[in-house]
Amino acid sequence: MSSVDLAETRDRYRVFLPLATRWRDNDIFGHVNNVVYYSYIDTAVTNYYLEHGRLDITSSLVIPVAAETKCTFKRSIKHPAQIEAGLRANRIGKTSAQMGVGIFLRGESDARAWGYMVHVFVDRVTNHKVSIPDSLRNAMQRIEIANTPGHPAA
Amino acid sequence: MSSVDLAETRDRYRVFLPLATRWRDNDIFGHVNNVVYYSYIDTAVTNYYLEHGRLDITSSLVIPVAAETKCTFKRSIKHPAQIEAGLRANRIGKTSAQMGVGIFLRGESDARAWGYMVHVFVDRVTNHKVSIPDSLRNAMQRIEIANTPGHPAA
Amino acid sequence: MSSVDLAETRDRYRVFLPLATRWRDNDIFGHVNNVVYYSYIDTAVTNYYLEHGRLDITSSLVIPVAAETKCTFKRSIKHPAQIEAGLRANRIGKTSAQMGVGIFLRGESDARAWGYMVHVFVDRVTNHKVSIPDSLRNAMQRIEIANTPGHPAA
Amino acid sequence: MSSVDLAETRDRYRVFLPLATRWRDNDIFGHVNNVVYYSYIDTAVTNYYLEHGRLDITSSLVIPVAAETKCTFKRSIKHPAQIEAGLRANRIGKTSAQMGVGIFLRGESDARAWGYMVHVFVDRVTNHKVSIPDSLRNAMQRIEIANTPGHPAA
Repeated sequence: MSSVDLAETRDRYRVFLPLATRWRDNDIFGHVNNVVYYSYIDTAVTNYYLEHGRLDITSSLVIPVAAETKCTFKRSIKHPAQIEAGLRANRIGKTSAQMGVGIFLRGESDARAWGYMVHVFVDRVTNHKVSIPDSLRNAMQRIEIANTPGHPAA
Repeated sequence: MSSVDLAETRDRYRVFLPLATRWRDNDIFGHVNNVVYYSYIDTAVTNYYLEHGRLDITSSLVIPVAAETKCTFKRSIKHPAQIEAGLRANRIGKTSAQMGVGIFLRGESDARAWGYMVHVFVDRVTNHKVSIPDSLRNAMQRIEIANTPGHPAA
Repeated sequence: MSSVDLAETRDRYRVFLPLATRWRDNDIFGHVNNVVYYSYIDTAVTNYYLEHGRLDITSSLVIPVAAETKCTFKRSIKHPAQIEAGLRANRIGKTSAQMGVGIFLRGESDARAWGYMVHVFVDRVTNHKVSIPDSLRNAMQRIEIANTPGHPAA
Repeated sequence: MSSVDLAETRDRYRVFLPLATRWRDNDIFGHVNNVVYYSYIDTAVTNYYLEHGRLDITSSLVIPVAAETKCTFKRSIKHPAQIEAGLRANRIGKTSAQMGVGIFLRGESDARAWGYMVHVFVDRVTNHKVSIPDSLRNAMQRIEIANTPGHPAA
């Protein structure tokens, strides 16, 4: 796995959101299970939409739907741990966007894991693709870092 | 998301394992949450190791560690649903392997979602990479389908 | 814990629903984590409502809200395991009901764990208590077993 | 459900631990699912053991096993929310203890939900009951509040 030899550092992210591990996150081998990282990623991205992009999950006509997610696991984490998610926008399209997320131990510069989440925005009722709402697009643009060739999260 | 326009069909997988959705799998939008698919993938791959590759999670000196996972979501699933995982080995290396998984509704030929899981095999105590045990390698080889260029799960 | 010395047997339940363990269900000690049993209970009760009580979670005006749940853990379970939930109605009120659930390994007569779930039925919009719909009440009555004094799940 | 008319207030707990909701915690009805509260309870109790009772989950010869848990749901919570767990010891026996937990929104005096967790302490290898280790017993005693008759969490 050549990608495992690469690293994602803190300066590759634009904003950091606190997260908390749970007892249930550890699996039989004593480390946070791979599935749980996606819960961290999902929470970090959605919280950013809610707090900075004025997304209202209860009443919004436009909702984000996951189209693709990926995560690379570099070094394990074990509950209890103080962690945080670094966030950036890798690519912002008309109706979809790829948000990059790195999972860090607080105080560390290298991510323990990193990945992305592609959201397609759809009409809540018809399920058809729609343009990303302006308030959300603006929030994404404020943390945009265009991908460079060879970047592990590309 | 060009990958979303592609499809993974049942004939691309070598073995099928039954799964069951849970009430908790549905999120606020009434569909199985993206995080949960990785729990399906994780369970399908590990169950195959246990049943066909003689992996013993309690006492084995060699354990699988997730190095990278990915999933593409094509069409949503809603609990309660009868689902199953199609499984294949995409690539079998010396100390790691990429297992491909498709999530199907029973009776459907197109996967609702598909992805892969890269496992690195390590010594449980030292955490150093080790060769995939023979019994497990044989089990993987029985369901190997080499990736073809342009394949969505490549 | 005197209750731990008691047992719940298969004949104390009226209907059985298949469940499936997942890799993620095991915790660091190699057993299904206590939290996960409530996911089994939740799924068994809700599936019964959906299949036998004509509850429609998407469009129903009346929805069940958990008011109280409890579980006693007698003997651990370890993924992978073939399990099933025994189900009965302990008490059926006007706007609420207590459903009893036992978690069994297939083929075993003593429950590994047992508990209950109290649901209050409310109007989806106003959140006010409403009568249990007739179709659902009928489904509950078909599996009613009144509690006897001293019964562990009382 | 008469218990639903009661309340657990902040002064009934001795120590408070911060928790964080996740996007996945919300269910189809837009509220934190009942199962998830047990993950809050489990995390709060275990974190207290780890931080104040010198429990070492990796190497300890004595481990806590859940024997019984219960939760009463008074008022729903919706992610994202700032929550915390109030903690106390309800009863401390020789080989087991009942820990009481209340789930509060930060700044609120009435618990949104409350319950307890009975832990039996066992030898990690033999699985036999053993005395609660002194360091852990001391930690429990520092937050003990004996139950009074009629108390909802009794």
